[in-house]
Amino acid sequence: QTKYFSSGLGMSPKKRENNQKKKVALIGCGLIGQSWAISFLSAGFEVSLFDPVEGVTVQSQEKIIVKLSDLQNYGLLKNKNISDFLDKIHLARDISQAVEGSFYVQESGPEDLDIKRELTKKIDAATPDNIPIASSTSGIPASMYASEVKGKYRCLVAHPINPPHLIPAVEIVPAPFTSEAITQVVKKIITSIDKEPLELKKEIPGFVVNRLQGALLSEAFKLVKDGIASAEDIDKAISEGLGLRWSFMGPFHTIHLNAPEGIAGYVKRYEKMYGEMFNKSDIEWSSVVKLGLEEELLKLYHLSEREKHEKERDTKLTELILHKTKT
Amino acid sequence: QTKYFSSGLGMSPKKRENNQKKKVALIGCGLIGQSWAISFLSAGFEVSLFDPVEGVTVQSQEKIIVKLSDLQNYGLLKNKNISDFLDKIHLARDISQAVEGSFYVQESGPEDLDIKRELTKKIDAATPDNIPIASSTSGIPASMYASEVKGKYRCLVAHPINPPHLIPAVEIVPAPFTSEAITQVVKKIITSIDKEPLELKKEIPGFVVNRLQGALLSEAFKLVKDGIASAEDIDKAISEGLGLRWSFMGPFHTIHLNAPEGIAGYVKRYEKMYGEMFNKSDIEWSSVVKLGLEEELLKLYHLSEREKHEKERDTKLTELILHKTKT
Repeated sequence: QTKYFSSGLGMSPKKRENNQKKKVALIGCGLIGQSWAISFLSAGFEVSLFDPVEGVTVQSQEKIIVKLSDLQNYGLLKNKNISDFLDKIHLARDISQAVEGSFYVQESGPEDLDIKRELTKKIDAATPDNIPIASSTSGIPASMYASEVKGKYRCLVAHPINPPHLIPAVEIVPAPFTSEAITQVVKKIITSIDKEPLELKKEIPGFVVNRLQGALLSEAFKLVKDGIASAEDIDKAISEGLGLRWSFMGPFHTIHLNAPEGIAGYVKRYEKMYGEMFNKSDIEWSSVVKLGLEEELLKLYHLSEREKHEKERDTKLTELILHKTKT
Repeated sequence: QTKYFSSGLGMSPKKRENNQKKKVALIGCGLIGQSWAISFLSAGFEVSLFDPVEGVTVQSQEKIIVKLSDLQNYGLLKNKNISDFLDKIHLARDISQAVEGSFYVQESGPEDLDIKRELTKKIDAATPDNIPIASSTSGIPASMYASEVKGKYRCLVAHPINPPHLIPAVEIVPAPFTSEAITQVVKKIITSIDKEPLELKKEIPGFVVNRLQGALLSEAFKLVKDGIASAEDIDKAISEGLGLRWSFMGPFHTIHLNAPEGIAGYVKRYEKMYGEMFNKSDIEWSSVVKLGLEEELLKLYHLSEREKHEKERDTKLTELILHKTKT
């Protein structure tokens, strides 16, 4: 078996043109596994597919080709031919064959603790040392499903967002027992397929993406329950309101630009208003601002460049609105 | 004084080509007032500007012209000339002159209860009967600032989102004393300037937009405080993740498409997960689903057209990503 990381770990960006010689193993070939295949294939990698359920491995190949064709029609495949991909899809008969010669394993099995535990053990037993084993789970931390796995140091979560072949963000969630070197390698791999890794420093139920979504959804359900507005109008508050900015700048960046003094000024002005909205003050926003949040935001977007940043926001927003008007 | 609504209330869409003969009064000419001017001018209306602070009324005209030029450069003004707008901007010397001949008044004064109370009284005293008086306030309900106003039946909130000349959503928040006819007229006026009115059925602190933003921000601050991820990575969870979908479909529409059975199936699958995330179950999502939410969503997006809706989502997302890649 070939180890692509002859130095143990790490893939330099320079090696990216050699992606076509590298193979990843995708265990579990439902919607999520298929999306991973598309992401790796379109970045030049080879993929080995295996799904434990009879027939699914073969069926997934066809579905992958259909979605690749869709992307090609939009010019997102950089003029590659679909036939070029066919040679790069390998259908494995079991886990061992899938992981053989692969430098990365992505498991996208069912969202069930017991199944994930057993599956991870099997993958670990079949996979050479130092090859990362990432799970697509949207909610089960690695410390729950991998604590009894022999090679748990190379187990972690790499959670994509639906639909995963289109959304760039991937949450990287190491367990306390995950090797830091493995975490960094997985971030590089995710970057090499043009996705955006977001690294969690600690495990937490729901990770970051679903916690943010859950907080907003809980409030949305409450507004419907209390008869404040229709679901349609609540949806518009996002799709014709907040979501426009959020499609190119996150919530902190947004409020940082909404007061002349940046985030500290925003919080000074509005913390009371938000506190009264929710009848609670269990987190003091201003203390979070002082404990490093303002420092980080000023490093990213300094006040001395404020006018430029506002202009950039309005330009992006204008172009986005123009784009929405056309489509 | 001319009343444009000779029938009392209501502007039919057919009359839109006659917008150029109609004038709105904009009281308060800071950033928000200027944005309103741009929205009304680019839809063909005339505007009367007045700001109680010495000099601001005159200054605002120049700023409005600069922003109109920006929009024109993007082709968002439908080939109108900037000089065409100059004739349509009237600088008033007081409230009475601004409201004279106006069929709508939008007040964008400071976010201060006492100031807003006094200002609304003055506007009401100067404005002919049945002309709506809307406030841009982002947080003070009309029942707080207008309860002692003689013509309170035509007072309500029309809250735009920053930057208001670019974001379509406008929250329409009537007080219990606001006339239903006035509310409907204001929705039509907002629609006639190509904005999206969202009507609140009841007043609530923060309205809908800032409550949704506040819920998400509270969780984001908590994640930073607990050392889960950097502000930059939390921002990416939105700008490279959830925000992409949300720029063209709201949170309910999104989850409705994330389970084959629609929102009821999504809630069945994930309510427990979200409940455990936040250590609380103060709102039962499933009961909200049963009490009308599912019915509304199925009316908007029926399961029989599911494949079409999924395809639309992926097409919009692909085009958005293509757009982001180009800009």
